[in-house]
Amino acid sequence: MQLSSQLIVNLEQAIQDHNIEEIKRLIKQVNHADLADVLATLSFDVQVKLIEYLPHAAYVFEFLSLAQQLEIAEQLPTSQLVQLISEMHSDDRTDLFKALSKNLKNEVYAQLDPQIQQQIQKLAQYAEESAGAIMSSDFVALSPNLTIPQAIEQIRQQASDRETLYLIYIVDQASKLLGVVSLREIILAEPTKRIADIMTTDLVVGAVHEDQESIAQKLSHYDFIALPILDDEQHLLGIVTYDDAMDVAQEEMTEDFLKSSAVSSSPKMSIKTAPIFFLYKKRVFWLVILVFGSLLSGIGISHFEDIISANIVLVFFLPLLVGSGGNAGSQSATLMVRALAMGDVQLKDWMYLIGRETLVALCLGGTMAFAVSILGYIRGDAMVALVLALSMMGIVLLGCLIGMSLPFILNRLKLDPASASAPLVTSICDATGVIVYLFIASILLGQVAA
Amino acid sequence: MQLSSQLIVNLEQAIQDHNIEEIKRLIKQVNHADLADVLATLSFDVQVKLIEYLPHAAYVFEFLSLAQQLEIAEQLPTSQLVQLISEMHSDDRTDLFKALSKNLKNEVYAQLDPQIQQQIQKLAQYAEESAGAIMSSDFVALSPNLTIPQAIEQIRQQASDRETLYLIYIVDQASKLLGVVSLREIILAEPTKRIADIMTTDLVVGAVHEDQESIAQKLSHYDFIALPILDDEQHLLGIVTYDDAMDVAQEEMTEDFLKSSAVSSSPKMSIKTAPIFFLYKKRVFWLVILVFGSLLSGIGISHFEDIISANIVLVFFLPLLVGSGGNAGSQSATLMVRALAMGDVQLKDWMYLIGRETLVALCLGGTMAFAVSILGYIRGDAMVALVLALSMMGIVLLGCLIGMSLPFILNRLKLDPASASAPLVTSICDATGVIVYLFIASILLGQVAA
Repeated sequence: MQLSSQLIVNLEQAIQDHNIEEIKRLIKQVNHADLADVLATLSFDVQVKLIEYLPHAAYVFEFLSLAQQLEIAEQLPTSQLVQLISEMHSDDRTDLFKALSKNLKNEVYAQLDPQIQQQIQKLAQYAEESAGAIMSSDFVALSPNLTIPQAIEQIRQQASDRETLYLIYIVDQASKLLGVVSLREIILAEPTKRIADIMTTDLVVGAVHEDQESIAQKLSHYDFIALPILDDEQHLLGIVTYDDAMDVAQEEMTEDFLKSSAVSSSPKMSIKTAPIFFLYKKRVFWLVILVFGSLLSGIGISHFEDIISANIVLVFFLPLLVGSGGNAGSQSATLMVRALAMGDVQLKDWMYLIGRETLVALCLGGTMAFAVSILGYIRGDAMVALVLALSMMGIVLLGCLIGMSLPFILNRLKLDPASASAPLVTSICDATGVIVYLFIASILLGQVAA
Repeated sequence: MQLSSQLIVNLEQAIQDHNIEEIKRLIKQVNHADLADVLATLSFDVQVKLIEYLPHAAYVFEFLSLAQQLEIAEQLPTSQLVQLISEMHSDDRTDLFKALSKNLKNEVYAQLDPQIQQQIQKLAQYAEESAGAIMSSDFVALSPNLTIPQAIEQIRQQASDRETLYLIYIVDQASKLLGVVSLREIILAEPTKRIADIMTTDLVVGAVHEDQESIAQKLSHYDFIALPILDDEQHLLGIVTYDDAMDVAQEEMTEDFLKSSAVSSSPKMSIKTAPIFFLYKKRVFWLVILVFGSLLSGIGISHFEDIISANIVLVFFLPLLVGSGGNAGSQSATLMVRALAMGDVQLKDWMYLIGRETLVALCLGGTMAFAVSILGYIRGDAMVALVLALSMMGIVLLGCLIGMSLPFILNRLKLDPASASAPLVTSICDATGVIVYLFIASILLGQVAA
């Protein structure tokens, strides 16, 4: 439930009064995500005190965005920051640590427990957007020889600071993964059995260098709560949990979404708070590239200047015809980009899809040709209507085929198909459209003039 | 791990031989999602037999898409279908049931257990895309007075067919929700305590008529495994689990993504399998609407026909100038649509964002104006360069402001801001761009001519 503002007022008062008992009473029933929302709204000196008094300050702190965490971290007394960082889960801790300023990083690192130092070193080494960079080392691992009651006792002992204890990993003495068992299965098992009897050995795993998007897809495909992450020798290094997978899926889709409008991907930026120059940089690159695309259209037009001067009515219909090709093309491209991202189609389906797309494009082109030829007849004559109908048919067909093929080609070249943005497809289709339209016009209307 | 093709061959052989022991041995270690993938590749008569022999056929069946489920359901003997449906989880069961043909629905319904009939009736009544339509009634509910060992015993008894037992709901005798407790907390608690002592009473809940997107956002915000769904009198009706929330989030983003290219939303369609006419219908509506947008550009052009005829070089730069406005505008619109969808900005931020966008647009416009004026000087003269620079500045600025405002206006009118698609923004910006360009040209070049 959303916190009442009365509670926030009471909480601020209790913090001012250093009334720790009252603070504990007030927040007892408030969950970590809501407490983080409260924390974010407080003034800095109240924040510091609340972090000092909170029983699980680190878990609340983790619900803040990285930018908010950094802002607080940079102002906290070092000793308090060290304690906070020590209590965080290993994945969030590493993210925050990597983002600290160089000085602060060194200062904090020196005061951390050697075991935590080692864990940070390990996790910080993995490439951005790899499984290693998002995994947590806070998992429960057991030996296969335990009986069920022994296992439950072990889980109780390990549980307090683990991300999940609902999937328990079974490892040998060298930390190689042997199997997995869910807490559900342990609860339901006969007490006389051993873990080895009930564990699953058909394992779905992720590799530590695997792309985070692929990890998120596996979790979602199998509906797992967590996925174990292994190195090349099958050693269990960490887990990625379903909530991290949700965040990754959202990040990746935002990236694709921005690319679809030719904005360089940067899923974490906010248009509300990002610096003006940063937003400029993310957008100017593609805008300038696209200028060259449009130049092609201009060159096409200048090639047909004579036929335009002689039939100025052609200019009236130019935006309509050219625009329709671009619109149909960006529809095709978006459908294809999405289908490739969802794993719905593969490269080998290309010919089959081109065939289907041709049929759809013929229907679309036919409808549009019919509509535009009526307009042409009203404003021009039967010949203009014919030019428009033929051009529209050809332009929509070409637009669809270009829009459908571009993501495939990019994929084939190992580039991100999402770069086949609507503006890029539009400017390619525009140039094609100009040439098709004016070529058809110059043949048909040229003949009439002759 | 992906199934080896050898296993599939062995499995098919065992099914042909009716060797149930061998089938059980082969599939013992294979998880449900992978078995569903195998099931989908088999021929129909082998499918029927595998469903007959599988120990948890219903849970495997649930991993198939609804279309695949329907295909099999329509060919199964009714008695087998009734058994399969009875064993499915309540949310997937209701979805399948609602999709059955009318005759089959009646036939199956008559043979179902009265308790299941009632459950289907209840769940089927909720509107599409509401919490009620995606929730499951398979949750574990306990009384607050149980001791910890009693609670564990109850969980063991209820566990077998429940979606999750990791969050346990505490209800009074009228089924009103009192609190929630995680299995982790139960495992860690002192055996002498009662459930009422350890349960959380600050509850995050969903309402049964709430939109599924809002439910998914709550689950993701709080990192919960499941969210309880209540009616207006606080009765616990069902739960929505994290894996359903992932599916919803993906569906909603796909919907926005398709809309961004002016394809009517239909997240479940596949470009590989959807009927041609269906794809045509989803695309033709916006294409025809956009024709009228382009007509505005045509009308703008025809209004300035004289200045074009006198300065045919203007046509060469027309696509470039007009296109740049559309491109900048669709960038702005996409950033804004995404920010609104993520809850990053609200309506009240509009004026502030317009101010920021104006700054970004001036930087973008300045860069583009500089580039295009060089081209203009090469191909025309200093006066043409000036016309181009001024027009580019104005067009990019207007494009950005239109792109940023349109999603806001749609949101204000209670329409989906995602309808401010790149093609729609482009065609509005195109018409504006034509007028700005030719108006500036007619003033500056007109004066020179006079």
